[in-house]
Amino acid sequence: MPDTLRYMVCNFCKSLEYKGMRADIQLLPRRVQAMKAEGKVFVVIDVLRAATTIIEALSNGCTDVIPVVTVDEAFDLAKRLPGNDILIGGERGGLKVDGFDVGNSPREYTRDLVSGKRVILTTTNGTKALQSVARYEHILVAGFTNVQAVVQRCMVLKADPVMVPAGKKGGFSLEDVVCGGMMLDLLGKEGVALTDSAGASRILYKAFEGDLLGMVRSCEHGRELIRLGFEEDLAFCVQTNVSSSAPVFKKGFITLD
Amino acid sequence: MPDTLRYMVCNFCKSLEYKGMRADIQLLPRRVQAMKAEGKVFVVIDVLRAATTIIEALSNGCTDVIPVVTVDEAFDLAKRLPGNDILIGGERGGLKVDGFDVGNSPREYTRDLVSGKRVILTTTNGTKALQSVARYEHILVAGFTNVQAVVQRCMVLKADPVMVPAGKKGGFSLEDVVCGGMMLDLLGKEGVALTDSAGASRILYKAFEGDLLGMVRSCEHGRELIRLGFEEDLAFCVQTNVSSSAPVFKKGFITLD
Repeated sequence: MPDTLRYMVCNFCKSLEYKGMRADIQLLPRRVQAMKAEGKVFVVIDVLRAATTIIEALSNGCTDVIPVVTVDEAFDLAKRLPGNDILIGGERGGLKVDGFDVGNSPREYTRDLVSGKRVILTTTNGTKALQSVARYEHILVAGFTNVQAVVQRCMVLKADPVMVPAGKKGGFSLEDVVCGGMMLDLLGKEGVALTDSAGASRILYKAFEGDLLGMVRSCEHGRELIRLGFEEDLAFCVQTNVSSSAPVFKKGFITLD
Repeated sequence: MPDTLRYMVCNFCKSLEYKGMRADIQLLPRRVQAMKAEGKVFVVIDVLRAATTIIEALSNGCTDVIPVVTVDEAFDLAKRLPGNDILIGGERGGLKVDGFDVGNSPREYTRDLVSGKRVILTTTNGTKALQSVARYEHILVAGFTNVQAVVQRCMVLKADPVMVPAGKKGGFSLEDVVCGGMMLDLLGKEGVALTDSAGASRILYKAFEGDLLGMVRSCEHGRELIRLGFEEDLAFCVQTNVSSSAPVFKKGFITLD
């Protein structure tokens, strides 16, 4: 973004002032569409598990991920796209969908399986959150595994980061807000101003930073995944900064660039 | 609420189980209308300043408060209602509306002014939040000044409390979430289960409990009120438990019963 865009007329003194970066977070899923997007970068967070899965797949050589909202769209798109190197992945109710190649556990997305392949992905919360911001220019995908890489990308873009936790069935997702809080903590240390909700998320991160695994094990979404037999995914998903990838979602495709 | 309603069929073991109270919070203003309301009590929180004003007015002998959404509705209703003992109060942009009797500063609602009077109130956030839940059976009004009274009323009702922070122009209001967190902390001590968002709000309360005044002075809404000349309202609004009133909003009227 050109630096000139960051000069704004002050609401109070009416003079032209330099507006530094300012970071925000949407604590609940909502119509992000209604926001003014100019000069913003949207960071879609879905720790459990779509974002972690996307980061893992791309880190393991997957060419690109196409997020779609419905199961029918996934099957339909797989038929229409050229080439045979396509995997259909995702979940409903946490479990792999009948007829899909792979579920939504990031541990399934090994180099052996995904290298050189395209993945069509549909999940209950994460792919919906991605589609809710799909029209915007700058969209990144984040989980604990790549917080530092995403923060660095935000700083290079010099755009105002808006964290978009995927939520859980339209409601609050603690693990995503805590992950957002970790990025906001890092952004704050870079001198980025934080809105009240961003500052609140940083406080929540600080409350849990010593025991992220305990946090995901005890939160609503984590307890559900444990009941479904995905306990090992939780430890995988709270690894911090094991990936240097900051996936970009643009024109329907998520890639490393 | 009859205690029999609290027996539910367990989703997992399919047996009938006693379902204890469970408290939740809506971190952003949204369509609360979409929620299932059976067995719930909605607690509308607007620390700065509508709820604090309503609690103060009723504590000082005001007969009832009628919250309305628009300025036109306020003037119109004042004309149509019988009796002369009516005050029109509220704000737009934080300031008293031209032609209104009183603004939205709780310190204006003295016993001398409001005793025996009805107040028609319209504010930017608080009265909208009240109207968003108006169709429900159990609605209480809360600020820091009456947290204990509201918690006690929730425990007597044995309904699941849903905290509804009024927000700020559709966005997050830190001061209301912290106030909700204070009530959720008390409810937790009474053995009430907390959702993830309720637990997160309790953490935010705990982060600020030692300096509520500092919190409202530095939050977005508080800074705006200071700029508008209402700094003294902030100290008034963070007094805890100075009122034993738990105002009830029912059929369009807020009263002490």
